[in-house]
Amino acid sequence: MLHIGNYSFESRLLLGTGKYEDAQTQREAVIASKTNVLTFALSRIDLDNIGPDPIEHLPREEFTLLPNTAGAKTADEAVRLARLARSSGICDMIKVEVIGDPPTLLPNPVETLKATEILLNEGFTVLPYLSDDPMLAKEAEALGAHAIMPGASPIGSGLGIVNPYNLQLIIEQSKVPVIVDAGIGAPHDACEAMQYGADGILLNSAVAKATDPVKMANAMRLAILAGREGYEAGRIPKSNVATASSPQENWANS
Amino acid sequence: MLHIGNYSFESRLLLGTGKYEDAQTQREAVIASKTNVLTFALSRIDLDNIGPDPIEHLPREEFTLLPNTAGAKTADEAVRLARLARSSGICDMIKVEVIGDPPTLLPNPVETLKATEILLNEGFTVLPYLSDDPMLAKEAEALGAHAIMPGASPIGSGLGIVNPYNLQLIIEQSKVPVIVDAGIGAPHDACEAMQYGADGILLNSAVAKATDPVKMANAMRLAILAGREGYEAGRIPKSNVATASSPQENWANS
Amino acid sequence: MLHIGNYSFESRLLLGTGKYEDAQTQREAVIASKTNVLTFALSRIDLDNIGPDPIEHLPREEFTLLPNTAGAKTADEAVRLARLARSSGICDMIKVEVIGDPPTLLPNPVETLKATEILLNEGFTVLPYLSDDPMLAKEAEALGAHAIMPGASPIGSGLGIVNPYNLQLIIEQSKVPVIVDAGIGAPHDACEAMQYGADGILLNSAVAKATDPVKMANAMRLAILAGREGYEAGRIPKSNVATASSPQENWANS
Amino acid sequence: MLHIGNYSFESRLLLGTGKYEDAQTQREAVIASKTNVLTFALSRIDLDNIGPDPIEHLPREEFTLLPNTAGAKTADEAVRLARLARSSGICDMIKVEVIGDPPTLLPNPVETLKATEILLNEGFTVLPYLSDDPMLAKEAEALGAHAIMPGASPIGSGLGIVNPYNLQLIIEQSKVPVIVDAGIGAPHDACEAMQYGADGILLNSAVAKATDPVKMANAMRLAILAGREGYEAGRIPKSNVATASSPQENWANS
Repeated sequence: MLHIGNYSFESRLLLGTGKYEDAQTQREAVIASKTNVLTFALSRIDLDNIGPDPIEHLPREEFTLLPNTAGAKTADEAVRLARLARSSGICDMIKVEVIGDPPTLLPNPVETLKATEILLNEGFTVLPYLSDDPMLAKEAEALGAHAIMPGASPIGSGLGIVNPYNLQLIIEQSKVPVIVDAGIGAPHDACEAMQYGADGILLNSAVAKATDPVKMANAMRLAILAGREGYEAGRIPKSNVATASSPQENWANS
Repeated sequence: MLHIGNYSFESRLLLGTGKYEDAQTQREAVIASKTNVLTFALSRIDLDNIGPDPIEHLPREEFTLLPNTAGAKTADEAVRLARLARSSGICDMIKVEVIGDPPTLLPNPVETLKATEILLNEGFTVLPYLSDDPMLAKEAEALGAHAIMPGASPIGSGLGIVNPYNLQLIIEQSKVPVIVDAGIGAPHDACEAMQYGADGILLNSAVAKATDPVKMANAMRLAILAGREGYEAGRIPKSNVATASSPQENWANS
Repeated sequence: MLHIGNYSFESRLLLGTGKYEDAQTQREAVIASKTNVLTFALSRIDLDNIGPDPIEHLPREEFTLLPNTAGAKTADEAVRLARLARSSGICDMIKVEVIGDPPTLLPNPVETLKATEILLNEGFTVLPYLSDDPMLAKEAEALGAHAIMPGASPIGSGLGIVNPYNLQLIIEQSKVPVIVDAGIGAPHDACEAMQYGADGILLNSAVAKATDPVKMANAMRLAILAGREGYEAGRIPKSNVATASSPQENWANS
Repeated sequence: MLHIGNYSFESRLLLGTGKYEDAQTQREAVIASKTNVLTFALSRIDLDNIGPDPIEHLPREEFTLLPNTAGAKTADEAVRLARLARSSGICDMIKVEVIGDPPTLLPNPVETLKATEILLNEGFTVLPYLSDDPMLAKEAEALGAHAIMPGASPIGSGLGIVNPYNLQLIIEQSKVPVIVDAGIGAPHDACEAMQYGADGILLNSAVAKATDPVKMANAMRLAILAGREGYEAGRIPKSNVATASSPQENWANS
């Protein structure tokens, strides 16, 4: 079970709802993923409408919604989007996303932390999207963030975990859940993050833009389960000295 | 389905039977893995006995046996072990393993290819264990090997895929199944190899020496499924230029 | 020539003065490195004395001093150290170092940026030590920092460039000099950073704690020259498709 | 000094003579590199001519020539080329290169070892070009090869050292010189190989195809010196636990 603030989820996969070719594929991928949490971008357009369009074809009541503030360039914009979302009754859980750099979509740490602090004070369940800098994660945790969302690599890049060292530091030091967000390209990336002890994975492009999104959603589901089981099972250490896997002396011979 | 020579297997995980703490753990791990193929080392001692000890506590009739020639230091020794195995009725499928270097347990390519050729001529179903050199894989395939078993890294090292470049070259060029053998340390390693298009994974230490071998066996099972599904689903390309995952223009808004 | 604020340096290697076994080794390593800039930690003890002890055995007039604020845990402490250094006539150039985490010595980004802003307003030439987060580098540059000092990996770890992707992003985007600081373990790490287009390298442990610090100082000097030359010379692209290095058709034959 | 068989060389850089835009650039790059050994492909065309064209614009007497058998697809072809070279008075030192795969130009290990054995019996000084498989290196050394030339990555790929693990194994185990050949893309790659303890580097594309080949030749020269010095100086170990580079207790304070 993944626990974030007062929420508990069976699945450790949080799935984005954008970028699918069509609503049917989106719906089937969401189902195949067995996710409990759907993410989508709040935006003026979305909020002018009655509901968040990206999920209008989905059985909304079966999921917890985790809207994000993508599009915000400052803490103020992010805060305003979050307040609108709550007043529209969408959710009181929010992923704070303040982009600092248009080409790479890397998060602006200063504005992200500022928005995180404000929204925490207003009672939101806040999940800030940050880089893989362990000190930023620490800062967010100290503010009271309910989970940390470090990026594995830039959004949509599919590069996987470019800095396993930092990701492991973040996981080791964090007392709140760590949800790896952004950059996952293939199931083994998700599996690796879970093996390090991540609490969950947020995905979008890797599923939505796969050749077969529905099959990929299932693959990601399995990979996350595998990584979690692997973490719990305790992997063998890495060793530069090889050891015989078929030892001369074998318990079965005695 | 994994097809090797005349054999077909539901599971793409081939599991070693050595190195477990006790027979009970071995048995449960084998069951959890849902493997169809058990591997073990042939040795004079084993063959002097009525049956291959390493698997005496397992319901042997439910599995295909893939004995290996570990311990052999020359082609002749490997060939002799294989012939003994066949005459004992154990199996006509053989993993040719000729170690060239005691500390690293890396395979001796010249002797391995020599034994492969001899055993193919004698009608065996032959799976040579080789390094990740794409030319050695080609050589073995040209001889008629029924599958290629490149090592991801040294046996028991848990280092995972030290050269993803070579492994991908081998998989791309090979017309016979590629079973990644040796070096897998954690589920994400197995998942990654499968994502590249490997046909199967042979494991031993990573399961047998895990803190909880039975749980790890299940994790590996899931990881291999995930990697296979991911391969079939077609992953997104890696890209240095990030792209917005929450695009302004969204199909769902239209 | 490396230009930082109003300073210009022949050498692109900035050398730390701490951690040497003895003063003689320190002096010889400094000379072998051909550095123009010496760095050292300001601390109460140092400033209570007449001069900064770490460099008392060095011909101080031949070098530009770049003191750092190591030991500071807040912006205020860093600012105070910098002011004391200036009033003591040591230097008006300062490396802002605010450690956020004792075990890893990773920099606290929020306090570092705060101190950077204050010291810039007071007319210092400021070089903040940051992580490899490209957005933090951007933030520091926007404040007016005279150079950016991203860490390659944790101080003293010798892990080299753990995230070449981020380092390259920082260098591409930055209009002020980028001095790679912390984590360099061997000459090839320094050479790699320079190849990416870094403007300089700050080193300490990799030289001071080498088996032969004087020889290592020279090796680092050569590696930095090599990397700079390589950057200017324009390296060949990386390619997955191999091309013949001994082509059949050769200009020399015509 | 690099010693190969009865030869000794001041420089540890062996430079290829192919692929330059023009003879003038080639000549200047060769001079800038300060190499003592020039390599080039023997081919029927070359040998039909009076001298080896690729080096006709170079002061041949100042260099030792190391022709290679590129173009050969079998041991027999390689042996024939080598004999022709010797009978033409070019050199009795030969780099055995038997390509097994046209697209990747990876070496055919079986034919390479066969040719190596024959040429060693005929008194040649033989340097076989092999993959980075440590067992192949061992095999060649056992045959009596005067040096081992493992590829860092495919010829002309510029991918650098794709498997540092294997390269280090080869260097550790080898009693004859190890010359890293193929795949070097930038100075830091050459520096890294030397840091591991390689005895020399053979380069061609990385210099000849650089934007400024002459400057790159100098960069490579410096990088190889840096890596060698770094190897001799004894680098600091890599450590996951960071240590303070500006310790409170400092020898200089006492």
